[in-house]
Amino acid sequence: MDAPSSASGPTQPRLSPADALAALRASAPLTQCITNYVAMQIAANTLLAAGAAPAMIHTVEESGAFAGLARAVTINIGTLSPAWVDGMKAAIDGATAVGTPWVLDPVAHYASAYRSAVARDLLSRRPTILRGNASEILALAGGNTAARGVDAADPVTAAGAAASALAREYGSVVAVTGAVDLVTDGTRVAMVSGGSPWMPQVTALGCSLTCLMGAFAAVTAPLEATVAALTLFAEAGARAHAHSEGPGSFAWRFLDALAAVTPDDLTGTERVSWNAP
Amino acid sequence: MDAPSSASGPTQPRLSPADALAALRASAPLTQCITNYVAMQIAANTLLAAGAAPAMIHTVEESGAFAGLARAVTINIGTLSPAWVDGMKAAIDGATAVGTPWVLDPVAHYASAYRSAVARDLLSRRPTILRGNASEILALAGGNTAARGVDAADPVTAAGAAASALAREYGSVVAVTGAVDLVTDGTRVAMVSGGSPWMPQVTALGCSLTCLMGAFAAVTAPLEATVAALTLFAEAGARAHAHSEGPGSFAWRFLDALAAVTPDDLTGTERVSWNAP
Amino acid sequence: MDAPSSASGPTQPRLSPADALAALRASAPLTQCITNYVAMQIAANTLLAAGAAPAMIHTVEESGAFAGLARAVTINIGTLSPAWVDGMKAAIDGATAVGTPWVLDPVAHYASAYRSAVARDLLSRRPTILRGNASEILALAGGNTAARGVDAADPVTAAGAAASALAREYGSVVAVTGAVDLVTDGTRVAMVSGGSPWMPQVTALGCSLTCLMGAFAAVTAPLEATVAALTLFAEAGARAHAHSEGPGSFAWRFLDALAAVTPDDLTGTERVSWNAP
Repeated sequence: MDAPSSASGPTQPRLSPADALAALRASAPLTQCITNYVAMQIAANTLLAAGAAPAMIHTVEESGAFAGLARAVTINIGTLSPAWVDGMKAAIDGATAVGTPWVLDPVAHYASAYRSAVARDLLSRRPTILRGNASEILALAGGNTAARGVDAADPVTAAGAAASALAREYGSVVAVTGAVDLVTDGTRVAMVSGGSPWMPQVTALGCSLTCLMGAFAAVTAPLEATVAALTLFAEAGARAHAHSEGPGSFAWRFLDALAAVTPDDLTGTERVSWNAP
Repeated sequence: MDAPSSASGPTQPRLSPADALAALRASAPLTQCITNYVAMQIAANTLLAAGAAPAMIHTVEESGAFAGLARAVTINIGTLSPAWVDGMKAAIDGATAVGTPWVLDPVAHYASAYRSAVARDLLSRRPTILRGNASEILALAGGNTAARGVDAADPVTAAGAAASALAREYGSVVAVTGAVDLVTDGTRVAMVSGGSPWMPQVTALGCSLTCLMGAFAAVTAPLEATVAALTLFAEAGARAHAHSEGPGSFAWRFLDALAAVTPDDLTGTERVSWNAP
Repeated sequence: MDAPSSASGPTQPRLSPADALAALRASAPLTQCITNYVAMQIAANTLLAAGAAPAMIHTVEESGAFAGLARAVTINIGTLSPAWVDGMKAAIDGATAVGTPWVLDPVAHYASAYRSAVARDLLSRRPTILRGNASEILALAGGNTAARGVDAADPVTAAGAAASALAREYGSVVAVTGAVDLVTDGTRVAMVSGGSPWMPQVTALGCSLTCLMGAFAAVTAPLEATVAALTLFAEAGARAHAHSEGPGSFAWRFLDALAAVTPDDLTGTERVSWNAP
């Protein structure tokens, strides 16, 4: 299917990373994050440092109703279980019903038959944004992957065609994150560079990035939201790296940097390049 | 109802913040914390740094029995679900049966009908201490609030009358926390000032404060316990702020400060002022 | 029973701590950690900093299948509940079926009848490695303990005989951790010293150590794996201590140190001493 996503994205303005960050801080969008146990604290701290308002509300008794109030919803299957999947589906339904953007992070979906089935079910609900590492995106598109656990074993560039195919099939913006990040809506393609080699050694930074993409999708169109989140991560990561001596010091310096980066710091950045697909 | 709480509070000595901190460190009270997934790590680290002994024991199969062994119990509904609520109720029953103090933190109870019903059910069990931000306390007392998610959108002073009404109705000490904190048992009122503007940008510090109030309630009367916890947070927060460059550096400096503050540092503090209600 | 464990341990090479660390970093073993909510983030960060690949996969729908792919499994009952215990048992069965080593951490098993029954059930499945503090090991062996919550109240040396008895009965390597650590397979005994007095004030470092023992058991025999994990913790803890001012600064410096310690740093270390049992 090539039909556009039913999410609210297309009605949002297309903002530069700098303007998107200013808009995020001006409105502190309430972002409902259904994420994994490992990520909850760092994801909430990431959104708070960036200027958004996270709410970790997951249970099916309230996740759908709350999604109707939130300005974005993010779904991450890292530590899924049946009760949580029920809550995820209710939140997706609640978001979709009112045109609220939602983001899917299919963590290590190839790691078990159960996880794979859940990821495909959620993907079929057409997320506004889909984020994964190269191994996750390749496997979702039906390709082979060298990966085992939660870490990517394939280069980002190897997943470009898979990302475009998924974007067109599900009407989603697809982000493949790694040393350099690739974003596409199936037509346009952006590459974002920056960050720090310490980032993969800090658990759940990728999951936190997924939540931040949701927060940005509350203030700008999906492709621009994804690029803005990646650009902010790239800039804050590079700044934090300069003064870090390991993954422990990087983690808190990264939160400091997320809070300190201004929209001006992202103006005219050379971190983003746009290409034909 | 104006009946006093059935909890053990009234039989505890009324200690100054300095003496309460000395008593806490002398006995390292075992404090059962049923809190949310986001808060668990920072709450445990907060209690350890302050000198208490946290135990995160939540499931209904053991929460009630363990509450009979703990010296205080704290309940936080941040990431509630039905199985956890069962565990909370069993722990409250276990604590109440032996006169052990317990603290309720009704996080964002206005965010859904489910959450609201649970919060009111737990409140009806008459917590020794009730802690919330201004929006949470206003809404519990039946007032209007401007809040959406987990963050307060109302000033602390706006919730003073609501706090007193709740204190009298449920026989609880009520704390309204914010830039300045208000504590009342319905008769006396204390205001506590200090802390840092970074505190709202570090997730779950409020939840951690709830747990610390429980730990102090194991060694001093409820009103004094609440004031002692707030005073320690205010002092440690101000110290950590002086050397922090953002929410990331503040978080670990705050834990260092919690461990470094001595009872003498709280002696004759001007952080607390007492008023008529 | 004196029968050897059925786990793969005996077929692994017996490596020194230095060689074990080199082997760990060379292969980044995929380690399935079913641990408690408090520990998840710091445990994952500990394994990443050390050089392993953690995967927090717990639910019964996939934990057994994933255990067949992982190179080690670790089980920690800190925040157990019935659904999680089902996932633990499936993971143990999955690991045992293919000879993958697994580690048991029976956190505070004496704290309730429910917890005690679960711990004994899991222990009867004959873990490759059993780790506890002195109070936990004493109580598992049927002795008396002064402990209440999750913290030890007995000295490590008091648990030496209990550790040897458990090692012989269950065919496990048993580690008793504290200011000085004791490890035994029922025949040989090693003592490991180092670390920092801040370690007990950082929540879940012991749980993280359990996960790290699993990662090392993927590359060396169980007794040597346990000693290697303890030696790395002792060395990194001592390094982090030298520059820390409290539990907050210690926590991130410890992660930096875990990543910075090289195999050479562990060569000829005097942290380990071997004795007759």
